Amino acid sequence: MNFSSKLLENAVNEVSQLPGIGKRTALRLVLHLLKQPKTQTHQLAASLNNLVDDIKLCEKCHNISDIDICDICANVNRNSEIICVVEDVRDVMAIENTAQFKGLYHVLGGKISPIEGIGPHNLTIDKLVEKVKNGKIKELIFALSSTIEGDTTNFYIYKQIEKYKVETSTIARGIAVGDELEYADEITLGRSIINRIPFDQSL
Amino acid sequence: MNFSSKLLENAVNEVSQLPGIGKRTALRLVLHLLKQPKTQTHQLAASLNNLVDDIKLCEKCHNISDIDICDICANVNRNSEIICVVEDVRDVMAIENTAQFKGLYHVLGGKISPIEGIGPHNLTIDKLVEKVKNGKIKELIFALSSTIEGDTTNFYIYKQIEKYKVETSTIARGIAVGDELEYADEITLGRSIINRIPFDQSL
Repeated sequence: MNFSSKLLENAVNEVSQLPGIGKRTALRLVLHLLKQPKTQTHQLAASLNNLVDDIKLCEKCHNISDIDICDICANVNRNSEIICVVEDVRDVMAIENTAQFKGLYHVLGGKISPIEGIGPHNLTIDKLVEKVKNGKIKELIFALSSTIEGDTTNFYIYKQIEKYKVETSTIARGIAVGDELEYADEITLGRSIINRIPFDQSL
Repeated sequence: MNFSSKLLENAVNEVSQLPGIGKRTALRLVLHLLKQPKTQTHQLAASLNNLVDDIKLCEKCHNISDIDICDICANVNRNSEIICVVEDVRDVMAIENTAQFKGLYHVLGGKISPIEGIGPHNLTIDKLVEKVKNGKIKELIFALSSTIEGDTTNFYIYKQIEKYKVETSTIARGIAVGDELEYADEITLGRSIINRIPFDQSL
């Protein structure tokens, strides 16, 4: 691209470093900002700067938080004996939206993924093992994505805590509610048959 | 969305105001920034602030520029008697990439679009008419999008300058190079037959 302005070129280059945003999209976004009042761009820039400068991770669950102990961990009405292990803040938000879980979370910060250079030491697995070691946890629920990386991470953690007295479970894999059986893949369908549940529990 | 952090929520809200970016995409982008070094976000924010604070429009052609008179307008080797009328900076970049045009540009800053609330007075049409009135321009090339808004804008400008002695032309509409005839729409195909050119000129 031949830019008529260095300022424009810089802005496009910076924006196009975001994932999934190419040069053309970046140019479109930046030209949009130029048509809006300046204050909108200043607010955008300030909100991003404030975020990266001031964001904290909850000291207990490692979820993104503005305060040292997040609202979920600080809530005395939640059951601190059940820990749901998730990858990142999006998973916490998704599970909270279901209103089906009243325990606490442990946010790993990612999955073990050799291809992306993410090993166990890049995640908060040590902290989780420590929590289990202290003996106050009854059950760990693994709620990672159903991918090779997710399964690897589950297994790695399982091996670390095997020797301690703690129940472990994974969220159920099966046919999504509302899905047609004929379009389900064989592995999911197979697992859903093996892990079938009594009919009266499914109502 | 239930955010665990006000800072995160603010950043997501600001980013999701960009066109074509919803809350989920905004969250993905913002979480990506949190995983990168802080300096990347600071650079991004600074480049956007610098852009909206310091950007200028070229005094002659109204293209985006860092200086008062842009490089194209300042280039004495270009033919200042031919003006190509375009919508915005992207069109200038696209035409410059073809290396087929050696005249100057006039950037309107948009198209007449009642639906979006853009009238002739929001564009640089007056400045263009003034240039034509001064009598130093031989030809105006209309290079706007082939849409109703583009055609309306062309016609509006044409009506304003009709009385002055200036040639006007529009860029050719026809079958794109490399396209199959059977997939062309009837209007384009019809126009391409009416506006056929001698075969020896097409080589």
